[in-house]
Amino acid sequence: MNVIADLCVVPIGIGISVSKEVAMCERILAAAGLKTHLHAYGTNIEGDWDQVFAAVKRCHEALHAAGVPRISTNMRFGTRTDREQNMDDKIRSVEKKMAD
Amino acid sequence: MNVIADLCVVPIGIGISVSKEVAMCERILAAAGLKTHLHAYGTNIEGDWDQVFAAVKRCHEALHAAGVPRISTNMRFGTRTDREQNMDDKIRSVEKKMAD
Amino acid sequence: MNVIADLCVVPIGIGISVSKEVAMCERILAAAGLKTHLHAYGTNIEGDWDQVFAAVKRCHEALHAAGVPRISTNMRFGTRTDREQNMDDKIRSVEKKMAD
Amino acid sequence: MNVIADLCVVPIGIGISVSKEVAMCERILAAAGLKTHLHAYGTNIEGDWDQVFAAVKRCHEALHAAGVPRISTNMRFGTRTDREQNMDDKIRSVEKKMAD
Repeated sequence: MNVIADLCVVPIGIGISVSKEVAMCERILAAAGLKTHLHAYGTNIEGDWDQVFAAVKRCHEALHAAGVPRISTNMRFGTRTDREQNMDDKIRSVEKKMAD
Repeated sequence: MNVIADLCVVPIGIGISVSKEVAMCERILAAAGLKTHLHAYGTNIEGDWDQVFAAVKRCHEALHAAGVPRISTNMRFGTRTDREQNMDDKIRSVEKKMAD
Repeated sequence: MNVIADLCVVPIGIGISVSKEVAMCERILAAAGLKTHLHAYGTNIEGDWDQVFAAVKRCHEALHAAGVPRISTNMRFGTRTDREQNMDDKIRSVEKKMAD
Repeated sequence: MNVIADLCVVPIGIGISVSKEVAMCERILAAAGLKTHLHAYGTNIEGDWDQVFAAVKRCHEALHAAGVPRISTNMRFGTRTDREQNMDDKIRSVEKKMAD
């Protein structure tokens, strides 16, 4: 089952800046071979369900191992059976409607 | 790794009412032996990380098998290493502060 | 326009415990006369759109005034025009389907 | 108060495709003069709190007026008082840490 997701990991208890920890997650997602797109409030992820969620688990494990005591993550994820769709398709579909 | 989560599954393409599909997910979470609390905009879930996410996957699979063509889920999940905490602890902690 | 929402405010940069700040938000929502239900990963809110979002803004303002340097909030909110529905209706609707 | 947000509007009860409705929201956000970035699972928005939330309200109103009977939106929004930060800053901050 393929999934398109959006991940927003919020490390708590390490001060105001969290970009180092977000960068750790980006590296983990890339190392998992997942297609990703970093934006200003999270990261789009596309891939096989099990691979996506295994990578998300590694993000939590790696951040805790790096000393982050608490993590609150927000994630959107969508699946569909009517047709195949990737991240670029979703954006193009909206942009096409905007141009109409 | 224990996780406290909040799951909001939104079935798309089956009309306006989605309560039947939400009820299916509730049964799947209960059958998985997870501690849950249904509220007006989602379901609190507490348990082992792998068991929680395996149950969430079964929700998507079961809804698709039941004819739902598209699902957009929103999920919050938190882990912490500083101390053990369950769902009741979280609520009591806030209520205690409100009473102070 | 009536809205049913779920609010999860995450204060950042004040340490691991955030229950005092969540309790502040609960008091603000109650003072606004909104119907609420605190659960383990957020707060259900029901009311007029403008009143709900004015209260959410006051939560951010009050937390910053209390010294929280950064806040990352996650919120779900739903509106519908087909019929009136309150928070209890949503839960009962799912519970009825579970009993069937 | 400036806010950086991420908006994901899910129209319910209009079938499987929702790109036309997402495009309507994009136009509303642009017409409001807000800085936005469309990605595969939502839209980043940056601007004054009141202007951002007024535009989000117009999205719900416009979709209902166009015949969407039910909408479930998920939104992240962050404010901070320690320093000014825009959407590009957030991304650059993570990318810099990834390069280190």
